[in-house]
Amino acid sequence: MSNKDKKNNSLSITIVGASGDLATQKIFPALFALFSQNLLPENTLFFGFARSTLSDMEFREKITKHLICRYTPEHSCERYMSDFLEKCFYCQGKYNSVDSFLDLYTLMREKNVSRKSNRIFYLAIPPDIFSDVAKAIGDSALVYCRDDVPWSRVIIEKPFGKDRDSSDKLTHEMAKIFTEEQTYRIDHYLGKEVVQNLLVLRFANQIFKPLWNSDYIKKIEIIWSEDKGIEGRGGYFDNYGIIRDIIQNHLLQILAMVTMEEPNSLSAREIRDKKVKVLSKIPPLKIDDILLGQYVSVKNDNIQLLGYTNDPTVPDSSLTPTFAKVKLKINNKRWKGVPFTITAGKAMKEKKTKVKITFRTPENNIFCSLGSCPPPNELIIRIQPNEGIHCNIVNKIPGKKLVFHEQRLDLSYDTAYTDHVIPEAYESLIMDIIDGDKSLFIRKDELQTAWDIFTPILHQIEKEKIKPTPYSFGSTGPKKNINE
Amino acid sequence: MSNKDKKNNSLSITIVGASGDLATQKIFPALFALFSQNLLPENTLFFGFARSTLSDMEFREKITKHLICRYTPEHSCERYMSDFLEKCFYCQGKYNSVDSFLDLYTLMREKNVSRKSNRIFYLAIPPDIFSDVAKAIGDSALVYCRDDVPWSRVIIEKPFGKDRDSSDKLTHEMAKIFTEEQTYRIDHYLGKEVVQNLLVLRFANQIFKPLWNSDYIKKIEIIWSEDKGIEGRGGYFDNYGIIRDIIQNHLLQILAMVTMEEPNSLSAREIRDKKVKVLSKIPPLKIDDILLGQYVSVKNDNIQLLGYTNDPTVPDSSLTPTFAKVKLKINNKRWKGVPFTITAGKAMKEKKTKVKITFRTPENNIFCSLGSCPPPNELIIRIQPNEGIHCNIVNKIPGKKLVFHEQRLDLSYDTAYTDHVIPEAYESLIMDIIDGDKSLFIRKDELQTAWDIFTPILHQIEKEKIKPTPYSFGSTGPKKNINE
Repeated sequence: MSNKDKKNNSLSITIVGASGDLATQKIFPALFALFSQNLLPENTLFFGFARSTLSDMEFREKITKHLICRYTPEHSCERYMSDFLEKCFYCQGKYNSVDSFLDLYTLMREKNVSRKSNRIFYLAIPPDIFSDVAKAIGDSALVYCRDDVPWSRVIIEKPFGKDRDSSDKLTHEMAKIFTEEQTYRIDHYLGKEVVQNLLVLRFANQIFKPLWNSDYIKKIEIIWSEDKGIEGRGGYFDNYGIIRDIIQNHLLQILAMVTMEEPNSLSAREIRDKKVKVLSKIPPLKIDDILLGQYVSVKNDNIQLLGYTNDPTVPDSSLTPTFAKVKLKINNKRWKGVPFTITAGKAMKEKKTKVKITFRTPENNIFCSLGSCPPPNELIIRIQPNEGIHCNIVNKIPGKKLVFHEQRLDLSYDTAYTDHVIPEAYESLIMDIIDGDKSLFIRKDELQTAWDIFTPILHQIEKEKIKPTPYSFGSTGPKKNINE
Repeated sequence: MSNKDKKNNSLSITIVGASGDLATQKIFPALFALFSQNLLPENTLFFGFARSTLSDMEFREKITKHLICRYTPEHSCERYMSDFLEKCFYCQGKYNSVDSFLDLYTLMREKNVSRKSNRIFYLAIPPDIFSDVAKAIGDSALVYCRDDVPWSRVIIEKPFGKDRDSSDKLTHEMAKIFTEEQTYRIDHYLGKEVVQNLLVLRFANQIFKPLWNSDYIKKIEIIWSEDKGIEGRGGYFDNYGIIRDIIQNHLLQILAMVTMEEPNSLSAREIRDKKVKVLSKIPPLKIDDILLGQYVSVKNDNIQLLGYTNDPTVPDSSLTPTFAKVKLKINNKRWKGVPFTITAGKAMKEKKTKVKITFRTPENNIFCSLGSCPPPNELIIRIQPNEGIHCNIVNKIPGKKLVFHEQRLDLSYDTAYTDHVIPEAYESLIMDIIDGDKSLFIRKDELQTAWDIFTPILHQIEKEKIKPTPYSFGSTGPKKNINE
């Protein structure tokens, strides 16, 4: 859709679950960021929907707390904020009530939302009420039947079920109201700049493109760690565990971007076809491919860091893994024999997400005759914090006769792009939704394929009550390892 | 030779032409740098030989001016300097006189130089007296006949003749006294850290090694420029011109390091075999492959920058090129179809030496559909100033939808190796000579092959009195170009 089309249309964006953390901390700030850059259609209004009783003013106060002016100069910030807030309205209601959504409809009409305005519904609510809300929205006639103009689109976020079956069930229920075309399954990791940059890095750079296969790459690791524990949010997490919370979605998506074949074009269809294709070549995990961990309390400098099961929101006997390392392979020509490992852990030493690509060392390496072979090259894609790319190359140390040294060729986004504000993931993704660009959203078959890799092992872990290995809060995970 | 052997031996280093600029500004400072790091054999003495009448004290004062302590802390600097200077002695003599070199011999014996000490003769003198000096040294029995222990070695620097014939003649004359094994033809560009690093960069890095051929590389450029004119030194330069002064030696050597096949080992023989091999695949230049220039005066901010022929040391009618751009090809499988250009110019806009490798853009580039294709990758090896390597990769600009941007992955030696002093080229090379490592010195057949590429065109330029194209002092050279 061209810029002109966007400007000519009016748009309503409804955030269901508008008083929750996701809405107030991520979605509204992202909407404001787009608003303050004049990227939204001129007639865009924002509707918050939730159960709490709030006036428009109270609602606006609630969201104001998290708004920051990243794109506008300080002196015009206040004006942008008040302009934005004037376009925010609140509707109190029940999530499963058609009446409530009819109230929303009435509110929209009061605010002169055109009957032909485009409509986005952002379901910032727990997934167990996704289908109830979808049904209520559908029954209140808020969803257009057709996909063209005007359009209605729905945004949902993980977890999409707990396994293949429950995921399929959710998809099926949602599909009664929203077509696959209208559905945007968000994975906010795909909105991150370096992740979006992966295709460019791989396919627009001759110095990387020919090397991106098992002839030159020895192994690929995806590493996610958080330096915080569960901190009172065990109610949700304990039902899911680290594999469902992080690995099966965010990290597997990154793996797909890193390993997919080159698409024939940049169309959403081509890109997602290629992602599904590579995911379908990953055999379901077996128990030997996995190491599970759960953090335990540790006393550091007289501060007691609580273990997972010490958290009041977690059952004492919980076997839910807070750490997992999984070994995957991809059965195609490009990746024959290359091991992939995905590691994710909470309550670890540091907060980071990165992809580490280790290249093979050159064959018949003449430098090995000097005693020790030079180290392999590595390409590191840092996703957070400090998004960036760096490449370790081998150099001789100045002044020393062929003594080797790994040296970084470095690209840090925050220093390299000082004149560009690096957008938050949600900003890019919401913009894509308005533009109708589905490249970075999870298609139904992609979701299914992702679940197929993990469903058998998840069932086995739960059925056999497999105990996670304990690791200390603030460590690098269990001391054990899986066979590599 | 192991470190132990070095320490057990005594060594005399004689610098013939000791009062000249090369000796005082480059060689003695390099010797001092090695001395202050305790890298020289314990019993090393330094003998200056030249025509001027100087006492040891006067000679020491002359060289002291250029000594700096780069490797030792400030407080111990003075002690190192005085220790070094105490080992420096001066012998006045004539360059073609056996008697004078017998005086040197006597001086050495006075200073208790062992009759079995190793001996280095550094001929820091104009090349037209190389053979006279060599003959006098030989006739005074200062050269050992055998190459093992003790050894004698001679160091000479370009110009090695003016064409293939005169170069062969020089080689032949020198060979009457010094065997090829004893002869170290120095090219100080090969002593520079980034140049020494070229083999490591190419062959120890999997991310570069497979790409180093015509499948992936589009073109290679070697660029040398100086921001100064001839400044009173036309007497030498006008006889040689930029091709002989810079291109046929320094820049061609760099080209050989960039393009040679992988050696089977790191032995000097293997490395030099491979260099000769690639140079022998470069066909002699033709007149269409070359663009010549000569700088002319220009008035900048009321400062008159003198043109080449305005220099009092240059004849008014001189046709000597101060700028040349040459187009080369290499007729082997690796470099089929890849154009190489070497550009060198004096009195240009800036002072720099660099190698620029431009990669092809990926075939069937999916990103070209966006309007413009992403730019090619480049690998830049900066030789001076600020030695370093950087690589331009293509990135998407944060926040913009697939808008491309060239971004540097950067490695600057001065910031990357803050805890290592980057040695001057002469330091590395003199150390190699003491170690008997000839990898970085020009072998006879290498020199011949290098002359074969340039001799026909040099003769043609001179015979046909080809006029160089004028370019302004401080510009980027002639506006014309050669066919690419």
